[in-house]
Amino acid sequence: MPQKRTAFFVSDRTGITAEMLGHSLLTQFDAARFQEVTLPFVDSVEKAQAVVKQINERAAEDGARPIVISTLVNTEIASVVGSANCLFLDCFDIFISPLEQELAVKASHAIGRSHSMADFVNYHHRIESVNYALSHDDGIATRDLGQADIILIGVSRCGKTPTCLYLAMQYGVQAANYPLIPEDFSAMQLPAQLKPLKRRLYGLTIRPERLQQIRNERRPGSRYATLANCVFEVREAEALMQQEGIPYLDATSKSVEELATTILHEAKLVRRIY
Amino acid sequence: MPQKRTAFFVSDRTGITAEMLGHSLLTQFDAARFQEVTLPFVDSVEKAQAVVKQINERAAEDGARPIVISTLVNTEIASVVGSANCLFLDCFDIFISPLEQELAVKASHAIGRSHSMADFVNYHHRIESVNYALSHDDGIATRDLGQADIILIGVSRCGKTPTCLYLAMQYGVQAANYPLIPEDFSAMQLPAQLKPLKRRLYGLTIRPERLQQIRNERRPGSRYATLANCVFEVREAEALMQQEGIPYLDATSKSVEELATTILHEAKLVRRIY
Repeated sequence: MPQKRTAFFVSDRTGITAEMLGHSLLTQFDAARFQEVTLPFVDSVEKAQAVVKQINERAAEDGARPIVISTLVNTEIASVVGSANCLFLDCFDIFISPLEQELAVKASHAIGRSHSMADFVNYHHRIESVNYALSHDDGIATRDLGQADIILIGVSRCGKTPTCLYLAMQYGVQAANYPLIPEDFSAMQLPAQLKPLKRRLYGLTIRPERLQQIRNERRPGSRYATLANCVFEVREAEALMQQEGIPYLDATSKSVEELATTILHEAKLVRRIY
Repeated sequence: MPQKRTAFFVSDRTGITAEMLGHSLLTQFDAARFQEVTLPFVDSVEKAQAVVKQINERAAEDGARPIVISTLVNTEIASVVGSANCLFLDCFDIFISPLEQELAVKASHAIGRSHSMADFVNYHHRIESVNYALSHDDGIATRDLGQADIILIGVSRCGKTPTCLYLAMQYGVQAANYPLIPEDFSAMQLPAQLKPLKRRLYGLTIRPERLQQIRNERRPGSRYATLANCVFEVREAEALMQQEGIPYLDATSKSVEELATTILHEAKLVRRIY
C-alpha cells in the first residue's frame, strides 16, 4: 500500500502554471498516491503564514511532509512558505539564478508582471475571439467567415466546438467551425460558403465507434447515432477532405489542448495572446 | 539598447506548461527583449536533432545563445536538445531528482503519462461542461439550470461568457450565466428563475467606463453603450446583488483566468478536470 502524500501548488496568481507543471511531474511517480491542492492568490506574508499552518497540519495528518511546488515571485513570501515542514520546490528560485547569470541582469521579483501590461490587450483579443468562435459555431453565421484565421470542418460531434474555443481562449485565434453533413457527401463537394476559403480549412475526424458513443449520449437510440451511420459519415467526410486536399487530424485520442496546439502549429496560425 | 535574445519552449506534448512557466520567468527581466518560440510535440530523437539545428542557427543570428526551457520527459530526447548552443533549463531534470529522493522511488520518464489514463474522463467532462456553458449562455436555456454548479450574473458584457467557458474548459465546472437587465432593476428583484437557486449565484461587476468602451465596440453610438446608462446599470446591479447577499467580483482589471480561479476557490466548486 503506497503512502498517502499531499502536494500543494502555491502561487501569488492563479496557480495554473504551478499545478500544470506539478501535476505532470507527479504523474511520473506511480508508487505514491497524491492528493493535490492548489492555493492561489497567496500574495501577502499573512496569507503565506496561513499556508504554512495548512501545510504543517497536513504533514501531521499524513505522517509525511507534503510536496510544495511554488511559483511565488516575491522572495519574502516564498521564504515564509518554504519554512513549512515540506519539500519546497520553488520554480522561481530554481530558474531565476541561472537566468540572472546568463543575462547579467537582476530579476525584478514583481508579482503579476506577466499579466499587468499585456493584460488589456490579451483580454480584448480573447473576448473578441471567444465572441467570434461563439457566433461562428456550427456554421450558424456565414457572414464574416472570411475573417476567420481558421475554419474547422468535420462531421457533427467530432470535437470542433471545444477546439475552436480553446484556440480562442489560449491563443486569441479567430476560429470558426462548419459541419459536414450528408448533403455535402451526396454532392461530394464542400459547402458553397467554404469553397472560396479552402486554404483556411482544417479538418477533424474521429473513429466511428467513439463518435457513436458521443452521439448516443446526446440522442440515444437515434438513427444519427447508429454505428452504421457514423461509419458512413466519417468515411465520406475523410474522402471529401482527401479529394479537396484539406489537412485533417484524428481527434479520437487527443485532448482539446493537443488538437488546438497541433492546428496552431501545422496551419502556422499567428497567436494574439501570450 | 538591450540585446535581442530568443527563448525556446520545448516539449514532447503541447508545450503549454513550458511556455506559461517560461513566459512568466522571462517577464521578470525587463532589460532583455525576448522572442519566444514554442516547439511542441518533440517526441523523437530525430525531431530533437532538428530542434538543435534551429537553436544553433538562432544563436548565430542573435549573436547570443538562446534560452531553452524544456518539459521533455524522455532523458534521451532531452539530452539531445541540451547539447545545443543554449542555456538549457530542463524542468524535469531539475525537479525529478529531489522528488525521487523525497519519495524514494524512481520516476518513470514516460511521455504523456499526465494525460493518458485520465484523458478520456477529462475529455468527457470538458465536452459536457462546454456544451452546458454554451447552452446556458446569457439565460438562453433555463431548463437544467438546476444542474449548474454555479450561475454567473451581471449586466450585459461584463465578462460572464468567457469566465463560464474558462470554468468549463480548465476545471470541468458546469457554469451557466444569466444577464441582469433593466426590468430586474425596476423590480429590484432577481429574475424569477434564479430565486430558487440563490446559493449558486455569483456576480460579476465592472467599472462603468470600461463597460462603455466594450459596449461601444459592439453597438457604436447606441443608448445601451452610453456612459450614463452603464453607470445606471452597474449601480443597480451592485445594489441588487448586495440586497440579495450575492458575492461578486470586479472584472475590470482581472484576466479571465483570475476570475475563473477566484470563483472556483471562493465558491468552493469541485473541479472535475486536472
